[in-house]
Amino acid sequence: MQEVFPFVSKYAELMITDLEQSNLEAELYFLALPHGTAMQVAKKLLEQGKKVVDLSADFRLQDVKVYEQWYQVKHLAQEYLDKAVYGLPEIYAEEIKKASLIANPGCYPTSVILGLYPALKYDLIEPENLIIDSKSGTTGAGRSPKEATLFCEVYDNFYAYNLARHRHTPEIEQELSKACAKEVKVCFSTHLLPLNRGILSTIYADLKVDLQRVFEVYKDFYGSKKWVKVLPLGTLPQVRWVRGTFSCFIGLVEDKRTGKLIVVSAIDNLCRGASGQALANANLLCGYPLEMGLISTALVP
Amino acid sequence: MQEVFPFVSKYAELMITDLEQSNLEAELYFLALPHGTAMQVAKKLLEQGKKVVDLSADFRLQDVKVYEQWYQVKHLAQEYLDKAVYGLPEIYAEEIKKASLIANPGCYPTSVILGLYPALKYDLIEPENLIIDSKSGTTGAGRSPKEATLFCEVYDNFYAYNLARHRHTPEIEQELSKACAKEVKVCFSTHLLPLNRGILSTIYADLKVDLQRVFEVYKDFYGSKKWVKVLPLGTLPQVRWVRGTFSCFIGLVEDKRTGKLIVVSAIDNLCRGASGQALANANLLCGYPLEMGLISTALVP
Amino acid sequence: MQEVFPFVSKYAELMITDLEQSNLEAELYFLALPHGTAMQVAKKLLEQGKKVVDLSADFRLQDVKVYEQWYQVKHLAQEYLDKAVYGLPEIYAEEIKKASLIANPGCYPTSVILGLYPALKYDLIEPENLIIDSKSGTTGAGRSPKEATLFCEVYDNFYAYNLARHRHTPEIEQELSKACAKEVKVCFSTHLLPLNRGILSTIYADLKVDLQRVFEVYKDFYGSKKWVKVLPLGTLPQVRWVRGTFSCFIGLVEDKRTGKLIVVSAIDNLCRGASGQALANANLLCGYPLEMGLISTALVP
Amino acid sequence: MQEVFPFVSKYAELMITDLEQSNLEAELYFLALPHGTAMQVAKKLLEQGKKVVDLSADFRLQDVKVYEQWYQVKHLAQEYLDKAVYGLPEIYAEEIKKASLIANPGCYPTSVILGLYPALKYDLIEPENLIIDSKSGTTGAGRSPKEATLFCEVYDNFYAYNLARHRHTPEIEQELSKACAKEVKVCFSTHLLPLNRGILSTIYADLKVDLQRVFEVYKDFYGSKKWVKVLPLGTLPQVRWVRGTFSCFIGLVEDKRTGKLIVVSAIDNLCRGASGQALANANLLCGYPLEMGLISTALVP
Repeated sequence: MQEVFPFVSKYAELMITDLEQSNLEAELYFLALPHGTAMQVAKKLLEQGKKVVDLSADFRLQDVKVYEQWYQVKHLAQEYLDKAVYGLPEIYAEEIKKASLIANPGCYPTSVILGLYPALKYDLIEPENLIIDSKSGTTGAGRSPKEATLFCEVYDNFYAYNLARHRHTPEIEQELSKACAKEVKVCFSTHLLPLNRGILSTIYADLKVDLQRVFEVYKDFYGSKKWVKVLPLGTLPQVRWVRGTFSCFIGLVEDKRTGKLIVVSAIDNLCRGASGQALANANLLCGYPLEMGLISTALVP
Repeated sequence: MQEVFPFVSKYAELMITDLEQSNLEAELYFLALPHGTAMQVAKKLLEQGKKVVDLSADFRLQDVKVYEQWYQVKHLAQEYLDKAVYGLPEIYAEEIKKASLIANPGCYPTSVILGLYPALKYDLIEPENLIIDSKSGTTGAGRSPKEATLFCEVYDNFYAYNLARHRHTPEIEQELSKACAKEVKVCFSTHLLPLNRGILSTIYADLKVDLQRVFEVYKDFYGSKKWVKVLPLGTLPQVRWVRGTFSCFIGLVEDKRTGKLIVVSAIDNLCRGASGQALANANLLCGYPLEMGLISTALVP
Repeated sequence: MQEVFPFVSKYAELMITDLEQSNLEAELYFLALPHGTAMQVAKKLLEQGKKVVDLSADFRLQDVKVYEQWYQVKHLAQEYLDKAVYGLPEIYAEEIKKASLIANPGCYPTSVILGLYPALKYDLIEPENLIIDSKSGTTGAGRSPKEATLFCEVYDNFYAYNLARHRHTPEIEQELSKACAKEVKVCFSTHLLPLNRGILSTIYADLKVDLQRVFEVYKDFYGSKKWVKVLPLGTLPQVRWVRGTFSCFIGLVEDKRTGKLIVVSAIDNLCRGASGQALANANLLCGYPLEMGLISTALVP
Repeated sequence: MQEVFPFVSKYAELMITDLEQSNLEAELYFLALPHGTAMQVAKKLLEQGKKVVDLSADFRLQDVKVYEQWYQVKHLAQEYLDKAVYGLPEIYAEEIKKASLIANPGCYPTSVILGLYPALKYDLIEPENLIIDSKSGTTGAGRSPKEATLFCEVYDNFYAYNLARHRHTPEIEQELSKACAKEVKVCFSTHLLPLNRGILSTIYADLKVDLQRVFEVYKDFYGSKKWVKVLPLGTLPQVRWVRGTFSCFIGLVEDKRTGKLIVVSAIDNLCRGASGQALANANLLCGYPLEMGLISTALVP
């Protein structure tokens, strides 16, 4: 461990064992594997009565047809799809506590669903014509060496990618459809930011009420969920405000001239989008407080 | 000059004189002044028969009411508003050649208008429901010291600002309305990128034809205008591809699932958005080739 | 507070009071004031029997002549100079525990003194001919708006500044001279890194013993001081390995061809150079564990 | 070509041919190949009477033993070593014009040799005890995907690498030894800057004369060589001042307290260190003006 990450030397005693050979003593397993592989390992673990928090996409989509169409692989653990709980604590905390398999949400969907859920659930916006313009730091692209993610390709640069075909789209649509009990389709765009961590999503919707009402509903919905912070009207989130934290910051704006609601949400794609959220889910699964091991102040600047 | 910019020492013999005192020998003047001030200086120069390329907003909006509402100052040179030509060479080259006053476009509007003009002019999209999500490098914020533009505030950070109230909005609407001879309103959002130069605009519209048709119309419209490059379908522009150049790169995507056209346009906000475009306009004004002094390859990386 | 730093809202109940008016209930005071001002406030507080951790340079230099020569101000609290303890816990922990006035070290000196102290104390290098080439992130330049620290001036740039005249020089020389009981003069250079936090100092000295011996002395000296990590030979520190932490990482290299020892030390100039170290000193002063409130893992990337 | 670099499409008609099959019509060849391979291709070309500008290290070191010791490969074209000219125009312009094989200098050595050459040639400093602390942008590490040069590894980070064993060391020593007709050994350190282009070298030497004399000798030596700019005393170079140019900027400082001369030199490691310098050498080789195709202003910011 110390060879790979000299800065975590104090955790260097972590054991690294072969999953096949090791007699699985642990009660709970985090899977950080490619989609397609994760489902097979999860299946083995679940059959032995283990609890699993899966960071891949394999158990996020309840409709196997949608999964196979977007990910282009056959699903080999379909029997567990309806047992999987989508691991977004603000929405599914109760289900998570009782579950044995958690589908940890994607980083983009976390920022989008937290940003839109109350507006759709409480009928504040039209469910049609949703535009989601998301921007993510480069850690979202993973750590395996590719020319596209070399420093000199990303630094001092900015561009859009995977327009109209990003694999996080069906996941967003599934959860937003549940929120308003209508089928929701979204136009979802992603961009690569020349920084390490942080996702900012700028979301456009046709507004049905006035902004003050939206603000009150959001404050009310997230009031008891302290890791989502609805900013005062007039303040917009910055990605550095959440860097290194489990928080999601939300800003709300009305464009009176065009009748649009603009929701801006910011998260740290690692601490909230992936590993941090996996830990929060594990905490709930094991009956610990959600934030155990997650409390930290943003590293700003 | 050498004191301020040691790297341009070979131009250090540039004369710096007091506008009042100097007997105005030059035929053409570039004004890089705050709005409100520019109009007064422009007026003086025009009264003496000089040619003016104004980089401020003072002569961009033909409707004085719109100007005064968005900029909150009284217009003191209204008699010149209808003489001013909006300095976007791809659209107004002929008018520019005959003009004596050029209103140099804003940087954001340049990227947006070049991206949408053909689609609206040739009725490829609905003029309603246009969403423009723009991102700009920090040179766009000017060089006067402010806490908000300090390195430690911008670096490793990203956020949206001026949502639903950016002053470039009426300029965009004026030109897009002319393109389709209908009143166009846009939902225009701006974001600050942690890099120096470059604007990328991601534009969403309701598509009325198929993508291939859009591609052909754009290729045809910009075919003879070599500084706008319509990228092959499947390729999206990156801001570094235009860094240091007068070029605008445009990418086109169709989101079949939602019926949207996504236009992505990239420019260097300095070379195309401001100073470079001012020079191009001066070239046309003086009967020189548009690109004189502007030919350069992108500095990549 | 929330207005200035929206991300620290959970501490928004911090009281902000006027030093003059407030009846000074607190036992200990942190002073983050300009040099010249700090000494006057410190004096007042000390006269009332308060404890002071001063982050300015006012009490770092025991020789008032040296102070006045480098800082060009008259010292107005000389009677407290010999009571002040230089707040570098690895060297002065015992004195700090008994002190009432701590002179919190500068950020550059912290990285340099920790890097050289054992080598000079145990006669492993010549005390002459020391070259210190330091590089610091931009937070070191403070937060008041200046053209030189605007994003567009620092980003994608790198340069040296204050060569042969940086005010941290006498502070370094004072402590290194104490280490070897000889007068030490150093050639100290500083550079501005286009990043926020982190100081890396590359230090060159004439080596008197072999590298293995240096390594053993450093391991031994810092063995019980767990916030300084001497890296295995062959590994060199990176500033991100200490970002957000109180740690100092040290790498040791021998250049056999020229007989030089190269010491590379890395710290977070905020967490170790300034505020973090002030807190550590306050902890010792109050009889708390040094690391109280300082334990954190580096935010990497 | 357009596939790899969409932004250079106007040069897309460049022919890409197989060296073996093509009948070598061209008179001059640029070799951008790994060391070890370059020498073999160069040999073939030279045997056919072609001119070669080699960007590898294969012909930089005149002593084959030194080459084989530092690069750990056998030299397979030793018969051409004494025909090769070291391609630093400020020093070898006359030889370059007559040569058929140019060994294009390394990027680090270019910045160091230009910075120290006059001081050693005119006996202004001691040839012993030279410390060179260099910092380079990440383009210096090449474009092949490696974990170490991924964006998230380099961004917001800084570290030293290859201390006391960088392969550019012997090349620097060879040229500096020639300058003063004594054997020179240097302590040479390299660091990775979180930016794309630019090398800044901070060089420390024992000064034998006063600074004014150094300044005059440098001005005189580089007076006719317009691509090296000796900055006024008190001004230090910034890497952005040379970005995108063939220029080398040099700043000179005296540390009176320690008797050191500090030379700071800045280049663009691509335009001056590698490709640009290769082009300048080709120009001289073909009897064209040195700067043909190289004149450009720095892209600042």
